Amino acid sequence: MQQILHTIGAGDDLSEIIGAFLNRVGGIFDAQLESDLAPVAVLVKHVEAYRGKMLRPTLVGLCGLAVNPRTELLREHAVIGAVCEMVHMATLVHDDVLDEAETRRKGLTVNRLRGNEPAVILGDLLIAAAYHLCSQLQDQRASLAVGHASMVMCAGELLQLHHRDDFALDEATYFAIVERKTAALIATACELGAIRSGATEEIASRLANYGRKLGVAFQIQDDVLDLTGEEEVVGKTLGKDLEKGKLTLPLINHLASVTGKERGKSLLLLEEACEGHATSADAAAALRRSVVETGSLDYARSVALRLVSEAKAEISTIQQSPAKSGLLAAADAVVNRSL
Amino acid sequence: MQQILHTIGAGDDLSEIIGAFLNRVGGIFDAQLESDLAPVAVLVKHVEAYRGKMLRPTLVGLCGLAVNPRTELLREHAVIGAVCEMVHMATLVHDDVLDEAETRRKGLTVNRLRGNEPAVILGDLLIAAAYHLCSQLQDQRASLAVGHASMVMCAGELLQLHHRDDFALDEATYFAIVERKTAALIATACELGAIRSGATEEIASRLANYGRKLGVAFQIQDDVLDLTGEEEVVGKTLGKDLEKGKLTLPLINHLASVTGKERGKSLLLLEEACEGHATSADAAAALRRSVVETGSLDYARSVALRLVSEAKAEISTIQQSPAKSGLLAAADAVVNRSL
Repeated sequence: MQQILHTIGAGDDLSEIIGAFLNRVGGIFDAQLESDLAPVAVLVKHVEAYRGKMLRPTLVGLCGLAVNPRTELLREHAVIGAVCEMVHMATLVHDDVLDEAETRRKGLTVNRLRGNEPAVILGDLLIAAAYHLCSQLQDQRASLAVGHASMVMCAGELLQLHHRDDFALDEATYFAIVERKTAALIATACELGAIRSGATEEIASRLANYGRKLGVAFQIQDDVLDLTGEEEVVGKTLGKDLEKGKLTLPLINHLASVTGKERGKSLLLLEEACEGHATSADAAAALRRSVVETGSLDYARSVALRLVSEAKAEISTIQQSPAKSGLLAAADAVVNRSL
Repeated sequence: MQQILHTIGAGDDLSEIIGAFLNRVGGIFDAQLESDLAPVAVLVKHVEAYRGKMLRPTLVGLCGLAVNPRTELLREHAVIGAVCEMVHMATLVHDDVLDEAETRRKGLTVNRLRGNEPAVILGDLLIAAAYHLCSQLQDQRASLAVGHASMVMCAGELLQLHHRDDFALDEATYFAIVERKTAALIATACELGAIRSGATEEIASRLANYGRKLGVAFQIQDDVLDLTGEEEVVGKTLGKDLEKGKLTLPLINHLASVTGKERGKSLLLLEEACEGHATSADAAAALRRSVVETGSLDYARSVALRLVSEAKAEISTIQQSPAKSGLLAAADAVVNRSL
């Protein structure tokens, strides 16, 4: 949370308001997961370590304030923020199981610490808790939107799994995956935050588009960091995309833009970089160099930057306010982050 | 579905009504999971094979009719039935991943056919789809109840995982697990079916208790079948409880009731029966024989029968009707089934 507020260089007042809001979100989050069963409580404790940037609750708050700068954020905003964060946490916990990731937010993952089985059920518990919390709002629109976003996220994950080791994956399919897997929930967070502040359908839909584009840019930046980041800085296991046969935008562009001969070479490296090969680390490093040399990393960055511009353009009709400045700065922060 | 209706020997009219109701449930279930993404549609297809007894939707229908025999079952009843079945399917899909089960309902499991990763996400999709469907009801009570039951189920699973390989597991903890893992959702199905037909809180609560007791009895019968059943009849991988270090009621009773020397012998067999031992199948067979010989299988059966009686007693004040007879017969069927 601190990270985003600092990165976006928000004004002191806004930082304070969003800081207090995120504390409230955290309180609701924790209360919803409280359990008098010791084995459950212990496991839930791990989730705290997963909570990092709190991007989705921050966007709920900023969208709420941007729509109606004169009113305060309500408890309902905080509940929506906690619900979105909880759904997100559930996907992180399950993703780490599927990716066999060992670290997350500079700590060990639940699957690494406790095994795959508790991690799968902990993810299920988080999803169930999110829906239960959302149902307390007496707001059918919110429940439907969160349920729908969750379904779409799963469809995105399944599409991604289907295309694992598909070295012919094209950009269109890449975006179809990312829009579902990452952007849908962020769009929903923005939309519901806005609706709770009385936004018109027009404004809510623009803020949802803002969130969707920001979400895709966020994922591209994740792809870039997975190729170029340093594990100590990013705080999670890197290089997993290659190892798991997931083609990311830089690589897709690389394979599509080089000559036939270069392409053949990169495909061989790619195959070698996938899981189970003794020389996979070396192959991955060589492939990374090729991707950089052929300008494909720059290409991916430029696509992310374009999406950030488009996200900002979506909210051009919203009146000026500190919260709107926060939304504009948050869009920039998504591609400027190194973690 | 046919199975339950036949086993309970329901009247022709009731069989027909419930049969039509379950068809409606099936239609809603399928429509909710439709996807225009081929990889998603293919995976969802597997869930059809998992749908077997449709116990939860049957109970939604029977409870609805028992409360108000003169009115028809509504679309809302069918939605609740589909929601409960979907949550149940999600847990089956994830359970099979955790248990590394190979067969279910006489077919191969999703994890066996497609791998663990799609199976985990398919389970997530089913949970999300269930909540999304439930939110369409505009019924906060239903959403809260389904969300709560799902949380409780996860807590039960976590408690069970925590006590894996705990050879000192006592009956109280066993029941704490089973009430959460199996009985909570069945109780919710009964309660919500009743509420939709205008039940008083008193009647809804009695039907919830009926479902809870029936659910625990159902699980004990599952335990008994896991020890004694024939795989071709039951239609799923058996002996997994022992292999996975899950103590079931017959075994708990056996260990608690034999002499110190016998107990030592059984504990050694138990350890050997757990996963990874070359002689685990032989040890499991020897242990099974001991459990039978010391009367612990009979003990477990008697507990299940007592719970069935208590379940029936819960609904004694409900007026006579074919649906009430169906509920009484369903309670008996739970412990008389061999699959």
